Amino acid sequence: MKKITILGSTGSIGTQSINILSKYPNDFKIIALTGNQNIELLLKQTTEIKPKYVVIFNEIIYKAKKHLFDHLEVTVLSGLSGLIEVATLEDVDVVINSVVGNIGLMPTLKAIQAKKQVAIANKECLVTAGEILMKEASLHQVDILPIDSEHSAIFQALQGNSLKDIKRVILTASGGPFRNTSREAIENMKASDALKHPNWSMGRKISIDSATLMNKGLEVIEAKWLYDLSIDQIDVIVHPQSIIHSMVEYHDHSIIAQMSLPTMEIPILYALSYPERKPMMFETVDFVKLGALTFEAPRRDDFPCLDLAFEAINRGGLVPTVLNAANEELVYAYLKNEISFYDISKYVEKAMNHFDIRQLTSIDDVLVYDQKTRTYIKEILK
Amino acid sequence: MKKITILGSTGSIGTQSINILSKYPNDFKIIALTGNQNIELLLKQTTEIKPKYVVIFNEIIYKAKKHLFDHLEVTVLSGLSGLIEVATLEDVDVVINSVVGNIGLMPTLKAIQAKKQVAIANKECLVTAGEILMKEASLHQVDILPIDSEHSAIFQALQGNSLKDIKRVILTASGGPFRNTSREAIENMKASDALKHPNWSMGRKISIDSATLMNKGLEVIEAKWLYDLSIDQIDVIVHPQSIIHSMVEYHDHSIIAQMSLPTMEIPILYALSYPERKPMMFETVDFVKLGALTFEAPRRDDFPCLDLAFEAINRGGLVPTVLNAANEELVYAYLKNEISFYDISKYVEKAMNHFDIRQLTSIDDVLVYDQKTRTYIKEILK
Repeated sequence: MKKITILGSTGSIGTQSINILSKYPNDFKIIALTGNQNIELLLKQTTEIKPKYVVIFNEIIYKAKKHLFDHLEVTVLSGLSGLIEVATLEDVDVVINSVVGNIGLMPTLKAIQAKKQVAIANKECLVTAGEILMKEASLHQVDILPIDSEHSAIFQALQGNSLKDIKRVILTASGGPFRNTSREAIENMKASDALKHPNWSMGRKISIDSATLMNKGLEVIEAKWLYDLSIDQIDVIVHPQSIIHSMVEYHDHSIIAQMSLPTMEIPILYALSYPERKPMMFETVDFVKLGALTFEAPRRDDFPCLDLAFEAINRGGLVPTVLNAANEELVYAYLKNEISFYDISKYVEKAMNHFDIRQLTSIDDVLVYDQKTRTYIKEILK
Repeated sequence: MKKITILGSTGSIGTQSINILSKYPNDFKIIALTGNQNIELLLKQTTEIKPKYVVIFNEIIYKAKKHLFDHLEVTVLSGLSGLIEVATLEDVDVVINSVVGNIGLMPTLKAIQAKKQVAIANKECLVTAGEILMKEASLHQVDILPIDSEHSAIFQALQGNSLKDIKRVILTASGGPFRNTSREAIENMKASDALKHPNWSMGRKISIDSATLMNKGLEVIEAKWLYDLSIDQIDVIVHPQSIIHSMVEYHDHSIIAQMSLPTMEIPILYALSYPERKPMMFETVDFVKLGALTFEAPRRDDFPCLDLAFEAINRGGLVPTVLNAANEELVYAYLKNEISFYDISKYVEKAMNHFDIRQLTSIDDVLVYDQKTRTYIKEILK
């Protein structure tokens, strides 16, 4: 029986994780849940799952709503200290980091130092602090288990193999909603157009990242840290069917790929049941019906965010933090129709050149430059 | 340093194995070579490689030609006893079985019992005696390492996973030279047409088996034994590009595939370096240039040998031996333009119904019924 803390249980991955874990009551027990603002859902989850701990991250909401949990046998905590406490509980085996934003950074670091397995669905952690987290994971001999479908595919393709034998990793991208749209038309595309993703049902922020290919760029950075790759070992190809979730080519030129119909359930379950696989009800790939798996080169000139991510990780240090924070603020502005599609890449690049800091010494640096970048972007957009 | 015996060093897989092993002189040492009739090549190989032992299988040729090896520091042996001796040498780690036909059966069994790793390129062994060989391998905790590209793909896709977690195995088939030929046209196809294989350069016998899909049928039987599958866990799909060499779907619906450009070098090297991978010079797959990987259902009605193989393994016992021996005799007759394309499946089925023996107790049974079937087919064709 694996005992689990879910950081960010009310978000998309959090709720999907609960849904899957509930199907294996003899294998998994959820010890702690955490949420930020959606108290209604957090209360519902707490009532159903009966965890020992629940964290209401937002301290104001905690004070106002804590009493709603009074009738339940659960310890209610709050703030960053609450997240860290439930990420390091003695009887927890696996911590799922599915919080939004870099608030998960410190709890993840503490979980690693407490020798918990960490299942990561949060992009920011590895993009901004992958160097620090992976060093700590190696030091404490802790598995970092990816939940993202691409990184899970690589992780699965690596089983029984050595990182040192990797020749290259091939990250697949759906190409997003503007894959076949001309550059001229993309220039005038609104967020409402970008939110129509062909294969995956996702949140609004990640849908825009998928349209700009920044999502793939962030995954390139994550892959670099997760699998100790040099940046020229990472290729990106567009594969519109989203059946091959990524591939690893070894130095004998053998390529191992992981495939399935698009779902987050397989990577979530694999991360949590690793190194085992558990049986799961799901539709299988009918290759004959599918007919073909197709591949294209990404249109790097028309989707400049991809190359900006390569550039950010090439510079290293705090530049990926700046890329990520700038992008997030710009995506929010794009979602509010305040800027155009190509303003996102334009101002991300501007921010990277403004805060071109190629050293990273601590998590605190990440948090400070994350804020500085957001302020900088907000100033620009005024 | 792995020490290696190559049974059948003058054949296609034997010579390719020598070629690859020669590139890693610090990792592999060839201790013994064996050949049957091609003494010129065997002598050349012996001169270059300087093994401790060489076996001339054919006893008449042995007596006539043994003196050619006198000036070399090598022990020259002959016959089945010679094969068994070099397959069980104390300082040999891996025995490659790349002999043609079932003459490799007894040496393979003895190698397993002597706890040698066995790399199998010979189809007959597993098709006819897979049940016996795999039981012995399990008993002696010996790895059976597949050299066939499809079974190597499955073996690679299984690393880090458990056989018990397999949902199904998907064997890919190129579809052969008559994939797009109408049944009416196939009826009149000669062996010379069938020998034009699109993706793989192969021997004449296996080229015909590829055209009839019997080759895939034999691989289904091999896969059944190698990976302890029930027959309904094995799917066959046509994949004309021969890039995906086969796939394993697990019970969580995750599919692991192995890919490369068509070559025997990767599976040979992987089998011999297993569980490591060694770097190899070879062309990589350019997915963008390739554009698409396509899939079709096999035309089972027009290529009845595939279903005959499923039927043979369903019946079990000696029926796969009968299928294999009948097919081989019929392919030789087809190569000599003595019978038509569909005579192959017609008479294979006839033989299976004639010798419908669903028990298998010993290797001797296999050898006896192999001969009986061949005699039966020769009588029919008279």
